[in-house]
Amino acid sequence: MASKNLLLLAGDGIGPEAMAEVKKLIAAMNEKLGSGFVTDEGLVGGCAYDAHGAAISDADMAKAMAADAVLFGAVGGPKWDKVPYEVRPEAGLLRLRKDMELFANLRPAICYPALAASSSLKQEVVEGLDILIVRELTGGVYFGEPKQIIDLGNGQKRGIDTQVYDTFEIERISGVAFELARTRKNHVTSMEKRNVMKSGVLWNEVVSQTHAAKYSDVKLGHMLADAGGMQLVRWPKQFDVIVTDNLFGDMLSDIAAMLTGSIGMLPSASLGAPDVKTKKRKALYEPVHGSAPDIAGKGIANPIAMIASFAMCLRYSFGMVAEADKLEAAIAAVLDDGLRTKDVMSEGMTEVGTVQMGDAIIAKF
Amino acid sequence: MASKNLLLLAGDGIGPEAMAEVKKLIAAMNEKLGSGFVTDEGLVGGCAYDAHGAAISDADMAKAMAADAVLFGAVGGPKWDKVPYEVRPEAGLLRLRKDMELFANLRPAICYPALAASSSLKQEVVEGLDILIVRELTGGVYFGEPKQIIDLGNGQKRGIDTQVYDTFEIERISGVAFELARTRKNHVTSMEKRNVMKSGVLWNEVVSQTHAAKYSDVKLGHMLADAGGMQLVRWPKQFDVIVTDNLFGDMLSDIAAMLTGSIGMLPSASLGAPDVKTKKRKALYEPVHGSAPDIAGKGIANPIAMIASFAMCLRYSFGMVAEADKLEAAIAAVLDDGLRTKDVMSEGMTEVGTVQMGDAIIAKF
Ligand SMILES: CC(C)[C@H](C(=O)O)[C@@H](O)C(=O)O
Ligand SMILES: CC(C)[C@H](C(=O)O)[C@@H](O)C(=O)O
Repeated sequence: MASKNLLLLAGDGIGPEAMAEVKKLIAAMNEKLGSGFVTDEGLVGGCAYDAHGAAISDADMAKAMAADAVLFGAVGGPKWDKVPYEVRPEAGLLRLRKDMELFANLRPAICYPALAASSSLKQEVVEGLDILIVRELTGGVYFGEPKQIIDLGNGQKRGIDTQVYDTFEIERISGVAFELARTRKNHVTSMEKRNVMKSGVLWNEVVSQTHAAKYSDVKLGHMLADAGGMQLVRWPKQFDVIVTDNLFGDMLSDIAAMLTGSIGMLPSASLGAPDVKTKKRKALYEPVHGSAPDIAGKGIANPIAMIASFAMCLRYSFGMVAEADKLEAAIAAVLDDGLRTKDVMSEGMTEVGTVQMGDAIIAKF
Repeated sequence: MASKNLLLLAGDGIGPEAMAEVKKLIAAMNEKLGSGFVTDEGLVGGCAYDAHGAAISDADMAKAMAADAVLFGAVGGPKWDKVPYEVRPEAGLLRLRKDMELFANLRPAICYPALAASSSLKQEVVEGLDILIVRELTGGVYFGEPKQIIDLGNGQKRGIDTQVYDTFEIERISGVAFELARTRKNHVTSMEKRNVMKSGVLWNEVVSQTHAAKYSDVKLGHMLADAGGMQLVRWPKQFDVIVTDNLFGDMLSDIAAMLTGSIGMLPSASLGAPDVKTKKRKALYEPVHGSAPDIAGKGIANPIAMIASFAMCLRYSFGMVAEADKLEAAIAAVLDDGLRTKDVMSEGMTEVGTVQMGDAIIAKF
């Protein structure tokens, strides 16, 4: 039997509470279905800084590299707002992405029917929404050098970041987008700012070439990223798969998430390239939401994004498609039953806490 | 009497149609109110490329530098999609911004009561919305060097753009935001990605210092740009003035514009620093919408954004506050009367073309 080693990095804020629900689920799957997951845990973010002075220790990093999949909660909080840039909580997440070479970040924005009314957008605009943002995750302005603050004297400083993309990086991320589109509505929209950025010119060119060379059966469109953001707000259902760079992907996926009524609901998967021999991909799964320090420890956080991230893990890392489908159906079912955590509570529904929500999903699973 | 020299750069697509309505308005003001505007015209964008092989000629650039204010329509279209990067239509606009040193881009997002229902957002989310995005316009990734595509051999290229901000640039744009906030709800939200970008770290620091040194009476908040985009979609009325960099400003102002129901309605002002002696600021006024080549020449474009941009010109370049107020009231009045161009048409309203809309506004003025 193939190994199923999971590393759980719950992180800060509501991360541990959300992760606790996934732990219960894993235990239930091991016990009732004999799923055979083996879990280990580590620290990331502010809690890792407090323990080791780094946002992730080398030892935990090594565990992440060796695991079959990493489940990640959330990092950061006001406690660590003043720590040096190099060891800030986010540095742990960025190191995981970079060292594991998780170049493909899949962020589905799905509007659960039961939640369509709680979006700030009109119901008809978001009802039935199902788009997938494929964000490049190991390149661009997040990692390009030089990245520094220079002291120019006379009270003047200069802050510099560098956006860099090479052909192969654009090729591989657009390949992922085209492949996934084939399993969906067969339509990819690529977004960049080619009218202002040279990396955008190259992005546009390489996506088109990759399309022509291997994926001409998929419908491809190009949009400027600012217009794309507008169109997401105006009529998001025009999209199927959106492929874009690291920084635009950060902005656009958060906006797409917000359209659906709650970012407390949305999962993401970050995948590496398949190993040449084993075909296995390194992978990390995390909710789109942050650490929400304001509600941490109160037992009211929505665990659905974390649980749905585990469903993506079942699907993409372990090929457990039936289980993933079933878990996603269980989430939809408890929502249909009217259970809501505080962030998505509305009139006539039943407000529940983190643990109750987790229990209800496990019971339906 | 101070000079009132206007340079009109109508550009491409629907630019000339929209500008024609402003020309009628200027003629009416000169005739009936003795406003004394003197206008000249020039080419920018694709039409300038066709005529001169450049997106703006040196002669027209010189006219822009000498004018009291520039009115700008829109640039670009499929006809010029394949022209070299250096002479693409947008290069004309970028040169105007850079050479005139128009570092402060003011983009109000106002939801006209008559249009609240036509937003893709719920009416209660956008009704009464009145926010102002202050976007830095001459720095950041738009102009930083290196900006290039390098051929690496073996079929590989590298696209590079550079985000650069100096202390003084952040200081002056945040000064503009704080000053404007004092004339509004006294609240500024600064947006960057300090968790990922060094320029964001500097941005955050300098905005806070500027605030402490000179504007501590204004309420200041900081938000990560991705979270800011989400909050704009979730509950935009939490904002008054948003100050942000060139690229985030591009994205966020387009999203803010879309919230209001139509970007065909929204104006912008791009201002330079006041001249040490004359106190006059170089200035360019342009609609937020683009050249909309698909509807160009059909007489159906919405001229309101262009007319509202002229209202901003009256206010900021000529101190004609009463006239600006009156013009903005005239726009609101024709909307209240039920006149709509096609882009904002809805049931029970009267659909009109570009010329009729312009005439109706002038008649109310
Ligand atoms: C926490 C932060 C570094 C991260 C990012 O900017 O990528 C987050 O916003 C995300 O989208 O995953
Ligand atoms: C036309 C383009 C260069 C421009 C920009 O990116 O600044 C436009 O999108 C804008 O927002 O004014």
